[in-house]
Amino acid sequence: MKEIDFLNIISDILRDSEYIGDDCAYLKDLDIFITQDTLVEDVHFLLKTTSAYNLGIKAAAVNLSDLASCAAVPLYLTISLSLPEKTEGCFVREFYKGINYVCQKYKIKVVGGDLTKSEKVMISICAIGKKKSKYLAARKMALPGDIVITTGTHGDSAAGLRLLPEHNKFTAKHITPIPRIEEGLELGSICSGNFAMMDTSDGLGDALYKIAKESKVKLEIDFSKIPYTKELKDRFSEEYKKLILWGGEDFELVACIREEDYCKIDKSKFFKIGRVIENTSKGFVIIKDKDSDYLIDEEVLSQNSYKHFGE
Amino acid sequence: MKEIDFLNIISDILRDSEYIGDDCAYLKDLDIFITQDTLVEDVHFLLKTTSAYNLGIKAAAVNLSDLASCAAVPLYLTISLSLPEKTEGCFVREFYKGINYVCQKYKIKVVGGDLTKSEKVMISICAIGKKKSKYLAARKMALPGDIVITTGTHGDSAAGLRLLPEHNKFTAKHITPIPRIEEGLELGSICSGNFAMMDTSDGLGDALYKIAKESKVKLEIDFSKIPYTKELKDRFSEEYKKLILWGGEDFELVACIREEDYCKIDKSKFFKIGRVIENTSKGFVIIKDKDSDYLIDEEVLSQNSYKHFGE
Repeated sequence: MKEIDFLNIISDILRDSEYIGDDCAYLKDLDIFITQDTLVEDVHFLLKTTSAYNLGIKAAAVNLSDLASCAAVPLYLTISLSLPEKTEGCFVREFYKGINYVCQKYKIKVVGGDLTKSEKVMISICAIGKKKSKYLAARKMALPGDIVITTGTHGDSAAGLRLLPEHNKFTAKHITPIPRIEEGLELGSICSGNFAMMDTSDGLGDALYKIAKESKVKLEIDFSKIPYTKELKDRFSEEYKKLILWGGEDFELVACIREEDYCKIDKSKFFKIGRVIENTSKGFVIIKDKDSDYLIDEEVLSQNSYKHFGE
Repeated sequence: MKEIDFLNIISDILRDSEYIGDDCAYLKDLDIFITQDTLVEDVHFLLKTTSAYNLGIKAAAVNLSDLASCAAVPLYLTISLSLPEKTEGCFVREFYKGINYVCQKYKIKVVGGDLTKSEKVMISICAIGKKKSKYLAARKMALPGDIVITTGTHGDSAAGLRLLPEHNKFTAKHITPIPRIEEGLELGSICSGNFAMMDTSDGLGDALYKIAKESKVKLEIDFSKIPYTKELKDRFSEEYKKLILWGGEDFELVACIREEDYCKIDKSKFFKIGRVIENTSKGFVIIKDKDSDYLIDEEVLSQNSYKHFGE
C-alpha cells in the first residue's frame, strides 16, 4: 500500500479531519499549534553516520520546522525515546544534550514524554507553539497574484545524505538542519492576511504541489530563481535539479504572499521564485526551466516524493 | 543500564525539570495538561494476541489514563503510527476505528501525527487536556491524615496477560482498559485543595510508593481492603498478591485526599485502602497484611516494578 492510501483510510475514518493536512494543527479553543513527528533508525537516520548529540538536534529541529511553517512561536516539547536494551547511558546523555542545545536556542522547554524499549532507536516528538500573528499560515491559503518565496537553498540535505560520512556544508545541513523559526514569524508579522506556507521537509516540489493542490491554484516557478549551492551542480551534474526539487529535508520554508506584503519583506532572507497564476479545479505546478517546462501533478508527485513505504 | 539511571541522566541535563515526574505536565501559561506515551510491538503488546481495533482502543486509553490521573478533561490526541512495510490497509483501518471509538466516547479529536515505516509496530500518542478543577492533582500533594483511595480492582490486567488467548474479564481488562476519566474529574470537583493522584499503569505498589516518595510521607495500606477480583485468588493461588501489587496496566486511579473530602465521595466508586500516616524524609509504604507487614521502599520498587530495560 502507498502512504497516501493509508492517509486516505485514516481521514475516512476520522472524518472530522479539519485539522489534518497542515504541518501543525491549530487548536482554536486553546489558541495553540501542535505537531508530532517521528524519526526511525535506518529509515530517517543511520547511527553509523550521526552522533547522538546531532540526532537530538535534528529530532527537535524537524518538529520546530513544522511550527515555523505555521508562523508559530515554539514553547514546549514532549519526547518519547525508544531504545534498544543495550543502549549506553552516554547515548541518552548526548541525545539530550542535543535536545537541550535546541531548547536553549529557542527558549523552549521539555515537559514530558517517556522512555521505552525497542529494537531500533525511535524518537517521537510532540511540539507545542503559540500563535503570534493575527493571521493563519496554511497550505490552502494561496491566491492568484501571490508571490512565491522561499527562505534558502534546496538540495543540500539530500546531497549531504549521499556524501556521508564526509564533513562539509551539505552533510552539516543534512545532520543538523536549522528550523526557520525567525523567518516564519517574520512573515507572520508582515503579512496583511492569511497566507500559504509549508516547510520543505519532503522536498521543494512536494511543498509547492501541496500548496497548489490545497489552494486549488496553478503555481509558476522560475527554476533559475530557486536558490541552491553552486557546488551542488559541480558534484552531481544533471542530477542536481532532481536534488533541488525532490531531495527533501532542507527544512526551508515556501510561502505564497500578497504582492503588497512582498514589498515589505527583507529580500536578503526571502527569495522570490515564482507566482500564483490562477485558480484551477486541480492544483498543479509549472517549473519553467530555459526552454522546457516541467509539470508537477499528483502523478509526478507520487513518482518523486519522499517515500516512507515501498510503493 | 536501568531505566531509572536513564531518567536521572535526562533530568540532570534538562535541569529545568519542574514538569517531569507526573503522568502529565501542566503548562500553566496555556492552562493545559500534556502527556505522551509510546507502545511498542513485542514490548507492550503482541500482534498475535490483540486485534488492531483493540490496539487502537488501548493506545488511546493509556494516554487518557494519564490525563485522568491529573483530573483533566481530555480534548485532543496526536498519533504517530510506525508500521512495517507490508502492513495491510485493514490494519490501519481497524486501528483507527479503535481510536475513533475512544474519541467518540470521550468527545475528543485526533488533530495530527504522522505515519512512518519501521520494523515493528509502534504507536506514540500525545494527549492534551484542560484543567477543570481549581486545584491540582499531582504525586507530591499527599499530606499526613489523608485517606488513600482507589477506583477499582487490581491485578486483573496482569492476570489477563498470562491467560491470553483466553477470552474472559481478565483478558478484556488487559486488552481494552478503561481510563478512569470520570472518576478523576469527580475527585477534582469534590476536593477542597490540591491532592495526590496517580494511575496504576505500572502497578499499584509502584503508584503508592511514588506518591509516598514525592510527597515524603509514610503510607499505611490495609491489604485486605484492596479491591480485587475473587477469581484471581482461585486461579493464581499465592501469586495473586504479587499480581495485585505489581501486575500493572490496570489503569485504575490511586489518590490521597483529605478526610473531609473523603466524606463527600461516592463510596460505590472509590474504595478506601489506607491512610497517610506521617511525614518522613524518604517516603515509603507499609502494606499491612494479617500478621505480617510488607514494606515498599526504593529497593523493593526496583525489584518489582514494571521493567522496560533488562536490569
